[in-house]
Amino acid sequence: MASKPPVAFIGLGAMGFGMATHLLTQGYAVTAFDVFPPTLDRFLQHAQSHARGSTASTASSPSAAVAAASLVVCMVATAAQAHAVLFSGPSPAAAALPRGATLLLCSTVPCAYVRDTLATALVHAGRSDVDLVDAPVSGGSIRAADGTLSIMAAGSDPALAKARPLLQAMAAPDKLYIVPGGVGAGSNMKMCHQVLAANHILAASEALGLAKHLGLDLHKTAAELLVLAPENKPRMSASWMLENRLPRILAQDKDGKAPVASAVTIILKDAGIITSEARRCGFPTPLTSVAEQVYLAALGRGWGAEDDASLVRLYSEGVGRVGPVSGQVDGDEAKTGLVASLLEGIHLCSTAETVAFAHHVGLDLDQVYELCVHAAGGSQVFASVARDMIRVLQRGASREPDGRQETLPLAVDKMQTVVDEAQRLKCPLFLGSQALNLLRLALIKSEEADGEAKAAPSTAVLKAWAA
Amino acid sequence: MASKPPVAFIGLGAMGFGMATHLLTQGYAVTAFDVFPPTLDRFLQHAQSHARGSTASTASSPSAAVAAASLVVCMVATAAQAHAVLFSGPSPAAAALPRGATLLLCSTVPCAYVRDTLATALVHAGRSDVDLVDAPVSGGSIRAADGTLSIMAAGSDPALAKARPLLQAMAAPDKLYIVPGGVGAGSNMKMCHQVLAANHILAASEALGLAKHLGLDLHKTAAELLVLAPENKPRMSASWMLENRLPRILAQDKDGKAPVASAVTIILKDAGIITSEARRCGFPTPLTSVAEQVYLAALGRGWGAEDDASLVRLYSEGVGRVGPVSGQVDGDEAKTGLVASLLEGIHLCSTAETVAFAHHVGLDLDQVYELCVHAAGGSQVFASVARDMIRVLQRGASREPDGRQETLPLAVDKMQTVVDEAQRLKCPLFLGSQALNLLRLALIKSEEADGEAKAAPSTAVLKAWAA
Repeated sequence: MASKPPVAFIGLGAMGFGMATHLLTQGYAVTAFDVFPPTLDRFLQHAQSHARGSTASTASSPSAAVAAASLVVCMVATAAQAHAVLFSGPSPAAAALPRGATLLLCSTVPCAYVRDTLATALVHAGRSDVDLVDAPVSGGSIRAADGTLSIMAAGSDPALAKARPLLQAMAAPDKLYIVPGGVGAGSNMKMCHQVLAANHILAASEALGLAKHLGLDLHKTAAELLVLAPENKPRMSASWMLENRLPRILAQDKDGKAPVASAVTIILKDAGIITSEARRCGFPTPLTSVAEQVYLAALGRGWGAEDDASLVRLYSEGVGRVGPVSGQVDGDEAKTGLVASLLEGIHLCSTAETVAFAHHVGLDLDQVYELCVHAAGGSQVFASVARDMIRVLQRGASREPDGRQETLPLAVDKMQTVVDEAQRLKCPLFLGSQALNLLRLALIKSEEADGEAKAAPSTAVLKAWAA
Repeated sequence: MASKPPVAFIGLGAMGFGMATHLLTQGYAVTAFDVFPPTLDRFLQHAQSHARGSTASTASSPSAAVAAASLVVCMVATAAQAHAVLFSGPSPAAAALPRGATLLLCSTVPCAYVRDTLATALVHAGRSDVDLVDAPVSGGSIRAADGTLSIMAAGSDPALAKARPLLQAMAAPDKLYIVPGGVGAGSNMKMCHQVLAANHILAASEALGLAKHLGLDLHKTAAELLVLAPENKPRMSASWMLENRLPRILAQDKDGKAPVASAVTIILKDAGIITSEARRCGFPTPLTSVAEQVYLAALGRGWGAEDDASLVRLYSEGVGRVGPVSGQVDGDEAKTGLVASLLEGIHLCSTAETVAFAHHVGLDLDQVYELCVHAAGGSQVFASVARDMIRVLQRGASREPDGRQETLPLAVDKMQTVVDEAQRLKCPLFLGSQALNLLRLALIKSEEADGEAKAAPSTAVLKAWAA
């Protein structure tokens, strides 16, 4: 353990705190810096109580933190913060890095930032000796503290070789993905994963908001959206984000306040990276763009610091105040089926948007699949159809026979039933109505191409984005 | 004047009141009914003070109102209200109509309601003798009271012959459109017109909300969005709805309260007709669907009875509370240019959605053009590009040489600049981001088809909807 190199850790937020304290338990000597001093006191206390014998210290500036560290992890919230820490803020780190240090940027940032702006700034600062690793993470604060994150690391081979033990210490054994393509490719991988995350987070609120308008018991419905009785198999509507956000959505509904685990500003920032990078490279992101506008509207209401699960309010606040409404769908099972269909339709479109975008930015699609299916962006729909989509893009196959999938007209019908009922109940469905229009456009395109609509939904929807 | 047939007028809301009192000044004897009795008192007072010598009376039920009327105008707010008035409410009118009466339904209702539900209900009630005219109107309460509405009338030839003098009394001389296709075609025409209305109303709020985030003076910007100095020519960003809503948007911004001229519930109802009819006939309405979700969200906040111009709040409420932001566009002229581009892009997409939908439901596109360009859905963009779109659909022309239009890549660039800046300022652009993605999809499709993007934006965007 004594042979492990000293680590500087900058940015001890919800994720960073867990990562930094986990490194202590793995025998790394960690010097921490955060702009919020009480966090540093908490870091030292945590080291004393949970990582006896570890070497924890704190620094009063980025430059002081990195002065003796051969490995530096930067886990701040945004590219702007990373740039301030390294170059433009008070006592910045770049000039103070030991010769030949390895810098791991674990924040979620645009590819263009890490590949162009940051890499160039290091050169301009005379720090070509620093090995840069682009290593965004996924998995939430619990897995951060457990050292079982998914990590998407990219950089030069020597840089990756030096960073690998530290990356392995923070990642689950099978979840350290070395992304080919050099610095920037890791951020691209994270960005494509976040297409799923940004849409599934809002979809969870949209689904439970619709459930509320339908008059369903939210606790019961929540459970039924995840698993199918009696075998307790995962239901097609299930997703990692749904399962993760449900307790907080239920708390929001019950107490009017969800505990804050991941703020609206965080997923808004990630959605903004997706849509701005998409614009930069000429790619349409119709689903994520809608989600982003809803997050922006929530920010405008002053909810930026609240948990993203609190957004269920945007959908449910009209219950009982939108005037007399009457739905046409009766029975809890049928109503829960509507909510499940809503999630399936959104997850289908978000899967297509993710795969098509990953293809557009040149990622290895098999790796995209492996990463996403096991990370926070995962869903039953993704697991079921993403491989078919990838085959179409890899081999140009236009019509995979696929007995597992329903037909596209059926998928359209199901979403149409959901949107019809939501309209009767006057429940907004930002993502659901967008997904329906995307499915409808895909159906028209598919009928044009084939004279009839034989393509599986996965293939047809994928083509709505591009080819 | 004495020879004019007696008229029953049911539904004296913002539009109906003006229409009914105008008919008095035209020498019609009008018996009015409304569910809100004070309105009837106001009707009689108005007759005394503004229509001396007219024959105005009121009735205490729909059946009493129509008992002696050979012409009946129904101007209630919704299909459900019309059905209650005629069949299912207290003292309904249908059974009491004089033999051979002419019934004009002027409410905005789904084609399926007037063509199927209402027509069938008349037959089932043994009232095949009643001549039904499907005659929705457009123009706002001032033109209603002036007798200068646009009216889209459809029905059998005998029914139209009997209704024509009354329709002419309510419409501007050149704005009575006889829509071919029988009962239901008028409602389809109104529905397609409302695609423009529903999107332009929200676009006006979205544009002024963005102007607020940009730090522009709203009064100055409002004027500049309508006309170009120094020649005072209409600017390409201008629309009927923008001009009409601006004073109320400015009042909302100044006093926190816009006077109520047209409630959110009204345009929400119309948007709902568009999207539900579109679903029924398998047509995608990506832009109107987004507008509808925003209207539903406003309803959920309890703003249903407020003027639709009050929705500028949805965009501007974040100004000053979304944290530090910094834009990259400097100077009032450039900033106003962004707002104008936002409107142009939205108006371009709403024009395409309107024309493509009208084609899908089988309307005469030349008549659609004539109606819309002079009605509340009109805009400079519509006037500039709708004819080109119509030519493509009518003649299958795929590439009209068109020196007047900018290229599609330029249109995409302009919208991209707007969405980039709005994102920096954290201003939601529900319609603008959707329009950009639709333009982007159109560009991809156009490049695929042609190897390069030579098509005019009008033609290319139109194709994003269908063929």
